Amino acid sequence: MLPLGGLGEIGKNMTVIEYDGRIVVVDTGLMFPTAEMHGIDLVLPDFSYLRDRASDIEAIVLTHGHEDHVGALPYVLREIGVPPVIYGGLLTIGMVRSKLDEHKLADSANLQELPPGEKVRKGPFEIELVHLAHSIPDMRGVLLTTEVGSMLMTGDYKFDQTPVDGRPADIPRLAEIGKEGLLLLCGDSTNADRPGVAPSESSVGPALLRQFSQCEGRIIVTSFASNIHRVQQVIDAAAALDRKVALVGRSMRKNFNIASNLGMAKAPQGLFIQPREIEDFPDEKVVVISTGSQGEPLSALRRMANNDHRDVQLHSGDTVVFSATPVPGNERAVNETIDRIYEIGATVITAKDAPIHASGHGWQEEIKLMLNLTKPRYVMPVHGDHQRLRLHSQLAEAVGVAPENIFRGRNGLPLEIDADGAGFGEDIHAGVMYVDGVNIGDPDDAALRDRRDIAADGIFIVVVTISSDDGSVVADPEVIFRGVAFLDEADALVEDLSDLVEDQLEEAAKSGNRESDLIEEDLHDAVGKFVFQRLKRRPMILPVVIEV
Amino acid sequence: MLPLGGLGEIGKNMTVIEYDGRIVVVDTGLMFPTAEMHGIDLVLPDFSYLRDRASDIEAIVLTHGHEDHVGALPYVLREIGVPPVIYGGLLTIGMVRSKLDEHKLADSANLQELPPGEKVRKGPFEIELVHLAHSIPDMRGVLLTTEVGSMLMTGDYKFDQTPVDGRPADIPRLAEIGKEGLLLLCGDSTNADRPGVAPSESSVGPALLRQFSQCEGRIIVTSFASNIHRVQQVIDAAAALDRKVALVGRSMRKNFNIASNLGMAKAPQGLFIQPREIEDFPDEKVVVISTGSQGEPLSALRRMANNDHRDVQLHSGDTVVFSATPVPGNERAVNETIDRIYEIGATVITAKDAPIHASGHGWQEEIKLMLNLTKPRYVMPVHGDHQRLRLHSQLAEAVGVAPENIFRGRNGLPLEIDADGAGFGEDIHAGVMYVDGVNIGDPDDAALRDRRDIAADGIFIVVVTISSDDGSVVADPEVIFRGVAFLDEADALVEDLSDLVEDQLEEAAKSGNRESDLIEEDLHDAVGKFVFQRLKRRPMILPVVIEV
Repeated sequence: MLPLGGLGEIGKNMTVIEYDGRIVVVDTGLMFPTAEMHGIDLVLPDFSYLRDRASDIEAIVLTHGHEDHVGALPYVLREIGVPPVIYGGLLTIGMVRSKLDEHKLADSANLQELPPGEKVRKGPFEIELVHLAHSIPDMRGVLLTTEVGSMLMTGDYKFDQTPVDGRPADIPRLAEIGKEGLLLLCGDSTNADRPGVAPSESSVGPALLRQFSQCEGRIIVTSFASNIHRVQQVIDAAAALDRKVALVGRSMRKNFNIASNLGMAKAPQGLFIQPREIEDFPDEKVVVISTGSQGEPLSALRRMANNDHRDVQLHSGDTVVFSATPVPGNERAVNETIDRIYEIGATVITAKDAPIHASGHGWQEEIKLMLNLTKPRYVMPVHGDHQRLRLHSQLAEAVGVAPENIFRGRNGLPLEIDADGAGFGEDIHAGVMYVDGVNIGDPDDAALRDRRDIAADGIFIVVVTISSDDGSVVADPEVIFRGVAFLDEADALVEDLSDLVEDQLEEAAKSGNRESDLIEEDLHDAVGKFVFQRLKRRPMILPVVIEV
Repeated sequence: MLPLGGLGEIGKNMTVIEYDGRIVVVDTGLMFPTAEMHGIDLVLPDFSYLRDRASDIEAIVLTHGHEDHVGALPYVLREIGVPPVIYGGLLTIGMVRSKLDEHKLADSANLQELPPGEKVRKGPFEIELVHLAHSIPDMRGVLLTTEVGSMLMTGDYKFDQTPVDGRPADIPRLAEIGKEGLLLLCGDSTNADRPGVAPSESSVGPALLRQFSQCEGRIIVTSFASNIHRVQQVIDAAAALDRKVALVGRSMRKNFNIASNLGMAKAPQGLFIQPREIEDFPDEKVVVISTGSQGEPLSALRRMANNDHRDVQLHSGDTVVFSATPVPGNERAVNETIDRIYEIGATVITAKDAPIHASGHGWQEEIKLMLNLTKPRYVMPVHGDHQRLRLHSQLAEAVGVAPENIFRGRNGLPLEIDADGAGFGEDIHAGVMYVDGVNIGDPDDAALRDRRDIAADGIFIVVVTISSDDGSVVADPEVIFRGVAFLDEADALVEDLSDLVEDQLEEAAKSGNRESDLIEEDLHDAVGKFVFQRLKRRPMILPVVIEV
């Protein structure tokens, strides 16, 4: 078993399970870039291990439709060429179909809904999906059985006893799996630090209704667009208070349409209005459901907060309800959004003010319940930072798993299991790959370092033109800079710099130095030193020698 | 009264109080740059208003020694030239003296301790400091009295009934001020969102001792270096458990020395060890007090987490205690630091796990107490984001201040008060200034935008050399790029680009276009279009035309 993502960092998930030379891939997730990854659009797990193994892939199995579990799929499919079979729950397959259509990859995979409890055999693997609850419908754990035994990848789950769709996690099946004997459990660690049991998703609806009923103006609710049950509860609360609903933001409309076509979401006739109609209705008759719960720069809510949304102009009296919590790393963007909304004069309600959000990941008691039900011989905590992986291990120990049977791995470190035991194999160093525009590849350290350097201090370009005959200067040096701040004395500096460059070139000509490379090196050092003395900054220095 | 900082954003504080043409400045704070401010070192309030008014300044009064209240002082002093009188508490003056020494500005100000309760007259102002409690000793509110009346700038405060130094906020004096009649209260809004009363600083010591006594290996505590009372409590807990103490990090050592020389901090003889001696003592006999509670990139703790600190190599068994909470915006840096510590195998305890931190800013009941004691006619909430300024206003209304007497301003908006009433004057648009290397100036939007653009997509430089006679190309075009990622086919791209440039130049020569500017403009557009087609990216395009 080879995790290509999901360990050590929340947000990217892809695991290769291998038996007898054949492969099943569970999830193909991505993560979003951090602020330091200048210009990077997406971060993918490094799936180069699969490059030469395309013909060995029996199937790709997807636990659920979140981007951190399916987002890398278009890139994986382009890479492996041969269209594989892809299994998943009904909504998962629906969302993936829409995604592949957008990427013009509709023919690159054979998408198949695999109903929970149904077993399918692919090569040496028997594949079964186990229904679990999460913050998106149709979340499924993946049970893979080979001659050696069975392993369960939980995906993201909670044991919600009162989920909105009335379908709690399939505890009876998990108990059976435990009875049949489970070799390995790979379990979600996201909330391994929270004691107790996560609140039920269905507790959010009444809390939203209570908040809504106290609002006198417009209500703008933001949540993850894929959280269909949350959106449904907002719709129900709006309908109960006789308010119209407008869905704002591309992914909000797209996901609702997919779920609605599958019969998983519904609204009374005439409830919906178009975003452009919002202003036609009295404030107290409108609920807007919007993307942007994470403060994403281009999201609908962020535009509203910046007074830059076509259809929704926030104003005093509006209430913005954050029915979501910031994903770690997004706190600043969310706080900035909230503060701008307050500046406009509207009010904000967050999960700190009222129980209007419930996590989709089980807390400690649920993680222990999963362990007790499935009674695995080996445990591998996944999907969490180092602290949570360790806490998950402690929970496993607490319910009686022997410490030597708990494996805390990392991306690229394969766990090898046979009849004799389990242990880590040789690290294949699977890291991450970056998507930058249309390109995808290994992290290009040089380019990113250049971007970081220029972002910090700017760039000086010095172009000199010399005669190829005798190295004499045939045109005035050109000094150009970008991203260099506060150059009050820019003209004087450029003049001094030009003098310096000419001196340097004369010296080079005298000493018989005619190699462009050497001249550029000398120029680089001299200009760098000069600029540092004057500006106490180290911008990138780029000398260009033109010979004519 | 003209706030030059402190409104709308937590972290920078500077206010100009003006009467009869004379000026008192209260605090000269700075803020630290956000991630988007590429290459900016510091952000200062824009104090250009003071530029021509240097001779009108009667005094600068400092509430306390935190950077967001004194950090801009060296820049202000350089600007105004004339050495002003600076008043503050004993520790504040000690810390500022050390700061000015480092900036070689020791002679640029007349630093004077003003004991609380003592009144000093400067021009039309009577100045008095009122002792309050905060997360640094010697915090003082500033009472300014003119013929029109009195105003109190609280600075940062809490009503700690059991502060570590035994000197609670001077409630009797605040009550007197209320009795004498206060015209304007400018109050700290930082914790206006927290109901109740902040825990006492002295509650932290016993909590630290409880945690320490459960640690079997080394203990590394991180907190703000200026929080002398916190550091003292860590020292006391270490001494009680017979552990040695090493102070690690420049500001930790500096601040402790200043406080120690002023008799405000102490340690038993022989308690301290040097950082390089840490490894000479058994793990269970050591407490390290370190900078880095905010995950600062170059801080001692961050280096330890990166396995990159000269004196402290973290290992399994170590416990790192965060006796501080992340300042908004620093969450990611702090979380990354924590996760790396867990990866190493050490354990982390934060304020979420145990009550090992207490905020230095009063909560709602304390804000109300301040209002009730001082009974101001006008209230101006400061030091907080828009949400907290609004909540502070609501608290003022709750204790009976008339809504029309509450002024929520913004940086650069002067509040004008006379016998007839109060109201905002004309906005002078005081924003922020950036410090970048040795330069200080207005935000240079162009430079920052350039940095941001290059950071996102890189830069292409195209140098062409043409004859000044006929515009013909006299040397091959040079194409150089930096920060452009994943250029697998870089050579092919550069070749195609060179062809394009040559075509472009030939066309220009034919059409008689000899103006460098026009040629550069055409080149810019053609190259930009070409690069976008090939890379789906918009790097900066910088054409340079050399005429020989």
